Amino acid sequence: MIPAVVLVSGGLDSATVLALARQQGFACHALSFDYGQRHVAELEAAARVARELGAVVHRVMSIDLSAFGGSALTDLSLAVPEAPTAGIPITYVPARNTVFLSLALAWAEVLGARDIFLGVNALDYSGYPDCRPEFVAAFEALANVATRAGVEGNRIRIHAPLLHMTKAEIVLQGVKLGIDYGRTVSCYQADETGRACGRCDSCRLRREGFAAAGVSDPTRYQV
Amino acid sequence: MIPAVVLVSGGLDSATVLALARQQGFACHALSFDYGQRHVAELEAAARVARELGAVVHRVMSIDLSAFGGSALTDLSLAVPEAPTAGIPITYVPARNTVFLSLALAWAEVLGARDIFLGVNALDYSGYPDCRPEFVAAFEALANVATRAGVEGNRIRIHAPLLHMTKAEIVLQGVKLGIDYGRTVSCYQADETGRACGRCDSCRLRREGFAAAGVSDPTRYQV
Repeated sequence: MIPAVVLVSGGLDSATVLALARQQGFACHALSFDYGQRHVAELEAAARVARELGAVVHRVMSIDLSAFGGSALTDLSLAVPEAPTAGIPITYVPARNTVFLSLALAWAEVLGARDIFLGVNALDYSGYPDCRPEFVAAFEALANVATRAGVEGNRIRIHAPLLHMTKAEIVLQGVKLGIDYGRTVSCYQADETGRACGRCDSCRLRREGFAAAGVSDPTRYQV
Repeated sequence: MIPAVVLVSGGLDSATVLALARQQGFACHALSFDYGQRHVAELEAAARVARELGAVVHRVMSIDLSAFGGSALTDLSLAVPEAPTAGIPITYVPARNTVFLSLALAWAEVLGARDIFLGVNALDYSGYPDCRPEFVAAFEALANVATRAGVEGNRIRIHAPLLHMTKAEIVLQGVKLGIDYGRTVSCYQADETGRACGRCDSCRLRREGFAAAGVSDPTRYQV
């Protein structure tokens, strides 16, 4: 089987991407980050998702982005908005996907993998700069000059299969793949058992996705 | 003063870059990594260099690249070559500069800095893919789509002022800036007091640089 590195956060999108990569026959090396986020429930969900959706291995790397702060997800003094806001929201973590992909690239290079998957989405999303098609394309271009594989002509591909899908389409795709989304945690401020707040941007996009897909929402909410 | 993030390894090149950035008037935020490298002497040198060359702050981030291995610098079971080798050498750390720059970018974004400096060099170097001009250009392109600053039209610049200089030119530049290179550690396998092996690729390039510049080599060698 061909190895691939798959970024797995424990949320709905990356679970779907893992299942898609498995369906395509990749030996999936799941990678998650303990980066100073608000809650550990998403890392527990990531481990569960990696195991249940057939990753060959799951690795959690520690990288303390809370040392930099600047985001409501890594700085507890900044509140997570519970209503839509204008512009790039305060939950944006500076350069997070660049950092995550760079570490995925490092692991891929050691594994001899040329395929990296991530679950970014540019339709039903929070407006983060590093979830857009131009970001994915620029990282792929970088990966192919930054590494031994790129220099030797073994093209590295950054797969973002959800990029142009609506949340409803993602949900329907995942249901078809047999994913139990009740096992995933998307909420920015889930409690320690993984129950969602139901009010943050991520909860809103997820809830609307289930509704638009006509799929019963399996999310465990706090209220 | 305009803030900048400067990658500082404790070696000759990055010390020179820090002095250049200071000379250009930047408020330099020095960033180093405890990434699982073979010795801590370079981190002690980095702290010394940051302090003595006028960084406003020095931060060390931990990121365990030895979990991935794949390089003689992060895997103690792989020997550091003591003679020139063909191709990309085993001391190459997969995606290291991509990882380091991505974290520099994260810090820069939080600081509101649009200038990132690093000491890569593509003339007298070990042949690492992520020390070449095309790598620097690709990362700059990425930085400008990955971030809030890029989206808002505040162009981020990746400064690599040594890119096209010989090691001798770098040494002469540094001497002009008043750098005491005896305070820096470039060796891949320095001992715990920072004394250099004198045999690895990095020692060879450095020693030849001093010789070609006609500058007395202040490096403390083990033998």
